Amino acid sequence: MTYLETAINAAQEAGQLLRDHFHQDKNVDEAQHHDLKLELDRKAQDLIFERIAAEFPDHALYGEEGLGGNQESEFQWIVDPIDGTVNFFYGIPHFCVSIAMRQGEDILVGVIYDPMTGELWTAEKDGEVLLNGKPLKVSSRTKLEEAIVFIGCGKDEEALKIGLERFRKASLRCRKMRMMGSAALGMAYTASGRLDAYVESRISLWDIAAGKLILEMAGGSCELVPNAENPDIYAIKATNGLIPIDEVL
Amino acid sequence: MTYLETAINAAQEAGQLLRDHFHQDKNVDEAQHHDLKLELDRKAQDLIFERIAAEFPDHALYGEEGLGGNQESEFQWIVDPIDGTVNFFYGIPHFCVSIAMRQGEDILVGVIYDPMTGELWTAEKDGEVLLNGKPLKVSSRTKLEEAIVFIGCGKDEEALKIGLERFRKASLRCRKMRMMGSAALGMAYTASGRLDAYVESRISLWDIAAGKLILEMAGGSCELVPNAENPDIYAIKATNGLIPIDEVL
Repeated sequence: MTYLETAINAAQEAGQLLRDHFHQDKNVDEAQHHDLKLELDRKAQDLIFERIAAEFPDHALYGEEGLGGNQESEFQWIVDPIDGTVNFFYGIPHFCVSIAMRQGEDILVGVIYDPMTGELWTAEKDGEVLLNGKPLKVSSRTKLEEAIVFIGCGKDEEALKIGLERFRKASLRCRKMRMMGSAALGMAYTASGRLDAYVESRISLWDIAAGKLILEMAGGSCELVPNAENPDIYAIKATNGLIPIDEVL
Repeated sequence: MTYLETAINAAQEAGQLLRDHFHQDKNVDEAQHHDLKLELDRKAQDLIFERIAAEFPDHALYGEEGLGGNQESEFQWIVDPIDGTVNFFYGIPHFCVSIAMRQGEDILVGVIYDPMTGELWTAEKDGEVLLNGKPLKVSSRTKLEEAIVFIGCGKDEEALKIGLERFRKASLRCRKMRMMGSAALGMAYTASGRLDAYVESRISLWDIAAGKLILEMAGGSCELVPNAENPDIYAIKATNGLIPIDEVL
């Protein structure tokens, strides 16, 4: 299988697992004030890691729930088994599986799968960006007054403080604000012209790696600024490349 | 047909119309800064009104897009043909049809239909409250720290100001905030234990009439305070009946 086929198969299999358990009670591994970890996060990641390792046993595996494979490899798979875990746990049908693969800093493949709607976003560097097999592109909106903007408020106090101030400013200018609970779907929606921007001050690589390739190939812009203390944490500005989001940040 | 059957059929037929047009370009009848009206709002309401009038020609019809039927009747159907019009227009698959029927002040039937997920909430006074045919109930969470709360920020400056301050306070206490863009689905989600509260300072009767019956029959609490100037506009506090939402309002 190609990298892309492997990512798609793994995402769809994990998505099936999540869909099967969506209406059942779920076991919580760890609860923090603004976040949760579930047994199914680990199970879904294990499944994805197995499927990738079966095809590419020498690649590095890097997921929200831990590492696998050969960490010395220049090929690294970046996996978020459930992006939007809190939604999944509370029964809100808005979450996804996100899988990317990069060689060095170069993201080669990005896949985001929403198992509840069946929507599958795929991007292959030097290839195509597709939503359920059809080309997609960002919106052509240029004004904040017409824009829908997703401002994430993060999981810690500092990110919440920054997010709240941005949220206030953006609310006054933009047509609508959305906080739907999945960063990866926020990026996929921006890539699809459903949202015009997704902004967050503190986000992990696994949340956004696939979305970055999808968004950029769909014509959007994705600015990442690595955190000084942890280089796998970023501040992100993802937009259609047109609206002046800096005016409200 | 019974009241409930009529409401279900009309909601599903209108939902089919919306689903059929979801991926197509849509005509805007009227655009305001924080809201939109579409040609499909009117078409969907016309279809619903026709279906109700065919069964109950002497009842009053009251919808977001205008009136119909016999306005003198004590039986009044309250219709929102697309709750979440902005989502529908921007391509975000989160919107619904909401239909209620009341006799005087007494809501007898409430139906909310999400045509993208196929979820159908139905409530019949002195009967059952169901989601796709299965009984539902609110969450048992009692603490804000575990709660997911939907704070609506309204469509005008005053509602936005109130909403922003509530949003800030609630963000600091609650596990997560959501703004998904549909009041009726916010109430249906609260009734289903997916959210713990939905609060908004300025909302129209058609947004919440069906949700009120559904939520109350699922064990929740729905406080409405009519606006002094317009008695069909309300401030709403919809909760699972357990979390102390007043602490952040």
